[in-house]
Amino acid sequence: MKNILVIGAGRTSTFLIDYLVKKAPVNDWFITVADQSLELALSKANNHPRTKAIQFDIFNDKARSAQIAKVDIVASLLPETLHIHLIKDCLLNKVHLVTASYVSSQMAAYDEQAKDAGLIFLNEMGLDPGIDHMDTLRLINRIKHSGGELISLRSFGGGLVSPESDDNPWGYKITWNPMNVVSAGMASARYVKDGKLKIVPYNRLFLDVHLVEIPGYGKLEAYPNRDSIKYRRIYNVPRIPNVFRGSLRKPGFCKAWNALVQIGLTDNRYTVPDADRLSYHEWLSFYLNKKNSSSTKKALAHFLDEPVDGKLIKKIEWLGLLTDEKIELKDATPAEILLDLLQKKWKFTEKDKDMVILHTEVEYLIDESCKKITSTLLLQGKENFNTAMSVAVGLPMGVGVNLILSKKISERGVIIPIYPDIYKPALKELAELGISFKEENTRLPAK
Amino acid sequence: MKNILVIGAGRTSTFLIDYLVKKAPVNDWFITVADQSLELALSKANNHPRTKAIQFDIFNDKARSAQIAKVDIVASLLPETLHIHLIKDCLLNKVHLVTASYVSSQMAAYDEQAKDAGLIFLNEMGLDPGIDHMDTLRLINRIKHSGGELISLRSFGGGLVSPESDDNPWGYKITWNPMNVVSAGMASARYVKDGKLKIVPYNRLFLDVHLVEIPGYGKLEAYPNRDSIKYRRIYNVPRIPNVFRGSLRKPGFCKAWNALVQIGLTDNRYTVPDADRLSYHEWLSFYLNKKNSSSTKKALAHFLDEPVDGKLIKKIEWLGLLTDEKIELKDATPAEILLDLLQKKWKFTEKDKDMVILHTEVEYLIDESCKKITSTLLLQGKENFNTAMSVAVGLPMGVGVNLILSKKISERGVIIPIYPDIYKPALKELAELGISFKEENTRLPAK
Repeated sequence: MKNILVIGAGRTSTFLIDYLVKKAPVNDWFITVADQSLELALSKANNHPRTKAIQFDIFNDKARSAQIAKVDIVASLLPETLHIHLIKDCLLNKVHLVTASYVSSQMAAYDEQAKDAGLIFLNEMGLDPGIDHMDTLRLINRIKHSGGELISLRSFGGGLVSPESDDNPWGYKITWNPMNVVSAGMASARYVKDGKLKIVPYNRLFLDVHLVEIPGYGKLEAYPNRDSIKYRRIYNVPRIPNVFRGSLRKPGFCKAWNALVQIGLTDNRYTVPDADRLSYHEWLSFYLNKKNSSSTKKALAHFLDEPVDGKLIKKIEWLGLLTDEKIELKDATPAEILLDLLQKKWKFTEKDKDMVILHTEVEYLIDESCKKITSTLLLQGKENFNTAMSVAVGLPMGVGVNLILSKKISERGVIIPIYPDIYKPALKELAELGISFKEENTRLPAK
Repeated sequence: MKNILVIGAGRTSTFLIDYLVKKAPVNDWFITVADQSLELALSKANNHPRTKAIQFDIFNDKARSAQIAKVDIVASLLPETLHIHLIKDCLLNKVHLVTASYVSSQMAAYDEQAKDAGLIFLNEMGLDPGIDHMDTLRLINRIKHSGGELISLRSFGGGLVSPESDDNPWGYKITWNPMNVVSAGMASARYVKDGKLKIVPYNRLFLDVHLVEIPGYGKLEAYPNRDSIKYRRIYNVPRIPNVFRGSLRKPGFCKAWNALVQIGLTDNRYTVPDADRLSYHEWLSFYLNKKNSSSTKKALAHFLDEPVDGKLIKKIEWLGLLTDEKIELKDATPAEILLDLLQKKWKFTEKDKDMVILHTEVEYLIDESCKKITSTLLLQGKENFNTAMSVAVGLPMGVGVNLILSKKISERGVIIPIYPDIYKPALKELAELGISFKEENTRLPAK
């Protein structure tokens, strides 16, 4: 019998555990569901004969080590920064590890030790990062094998609200990690365009809007992700003259978010004095030059050079930034005050449905012509928090566990799903589970 | 005999040591000049019978403690963050301390212990902070005693280049701590205007330009300093409806510096990849959208919405940002690359003269009329690094040492020169030494 430890019994674990439980009898697997909350772990283990729920404290070294010693593989849904606590126990007890997180520099440092121990620490095995890598590598390797020369790779991802639940002027709700909503774009971004490095400082990130046509959906906009350049190395296309990765939002979102950035409401480097004694309206007015007789709304419109009754001002007004409602935070930065407000206004409820999109556009030269492939995943969630996001993160992790336990992966060490022995069977199985890409091939005018 | 330890034998120490040496015979003082470099300490001690030079390592606990045990007072010219190493030895050995640095939170935490030990830790005893506090308190207290009601306090300071040495298009050279040049404005600022709090995010700091007429000089511009609001408390004017403190620059400087901020060249939060293989021109082009046939200069002008041959583009071009000269730094942030360049271009040489300006404008209501006082200090330096800045920082520190040793100060603990028993005699003596303010009184139209 193989023992699997799933750490974290939140929303994403539902579909991971469901996948593992379905495969457990035929593979002789036993699944232990671990969470800080025993109640949550019990609800996800669901009294199945092949599951068990335990209370788990990642910071209790002894209990954690003892638990990991009992299993063959750990699937961790913990935040990225906490995986590091698992690594030493995994090495000591020869236990594989699967996560959906980006490879941190801390994680990367264990590559050699994991290799020496014959272990697989498979990271970035979710949606984005995860399925995006797999589909992109599938396209890249197909083009390379056909003798084509890659000239452009643009990749877009987004966790959005489904059209039937899209009922606010921003076209956005918090369907995923709320911390990322405010902080995601708080660094500069870089990509490659026409063979040249482009750096976009944070100031201008939401002005660098790229329009994308998503087949089966329509137009969306994207702002650049942090570091697209490193994917030249990761995807082994070192000289490709165009690499861009972006985050998708509904049209108009970036312009309105840029307004919040320019006003100064996303800053995380200082504390607003006496925030708990202020209304949102008073707070906003600190950043504006208001003539004595004028309203904050007019001053806002003037600062942004937008019509007072236009869409942009409406979005900001809808957030409640012009109301007398009190800020209920003390010693908070602007970013913290804004996030607290957004969590109320952009609340994703049990009646809402989400939607995830992955869309890759590859251009290449072959036989003296220029061709383009687009590959699109569009997945809609269901009510009651059965989100597309949790399906699209949980299932790849389950597939990853299956591939490792059935010894289908030859690589060892700290890896991500860029190898054919991972992405080929994984994409095939994901398609059978309903996560499939729609491809379009076109010929472009010669460049 | 009283023993004085001067720590740091750099430029500023010249006038401090000179002041102390002149007063040493009549007061029976002996001055020990301590520096990392014995050579530098020897040159400043200058073989005077009442001085001695020693090599000094702030991080050598034993030697430092032994040295402080021998003296009655320490005058520290070390950077702000290093004073903390002196405090415990001062407390243990009942030694007073004078610095020209802002009171850090670390320093402030020792207030009670210093009081209990009967010691004076006199900080902010330089120019700005220092003389600015003294002159402002002089004005505030005079108005209060006359029964006036303060309605506005605006205070401006600047370390500039003297007109005869002003030979570059920026009108600026690095006459003072180079680290501050790039980082000084890298945080948001806040002040009070018409009774309302104003927050200026870093993005917009150099757009919030305040024009000031300096009597005896002409027009300058100022951008807001970090936190002006706290001076309501420090100067004991808790309800004053206007408080602003700003840094002075030559007209046009702020607009050009804002261009560097908006391009993204002052960011200190990420490393430019392979900077050591780039020219300044290549680096700049990363931040611009250049059409294939266009030049970086044209792309720059287009981004900034400025004429290609205008003053602003000229300033940026003069810095060398459009040249093929190589950046000689590896793993550097944009701010570090820019500072390295500015230290070459804005180099203050031994032939140059500097100029320091302090200018305070106070408005108050009295007898149903509105009056204004401006008080201006304009001090020019001499060649060979005998800068006005080092005079204006070194002399107040010397005066502070004198006031403490002659028991003229009644306050104890961690203090700054806002008390009449400090600022009254200090301003009087500084005026005798050539550091004096010119005052203008006007009546304003009723508000």
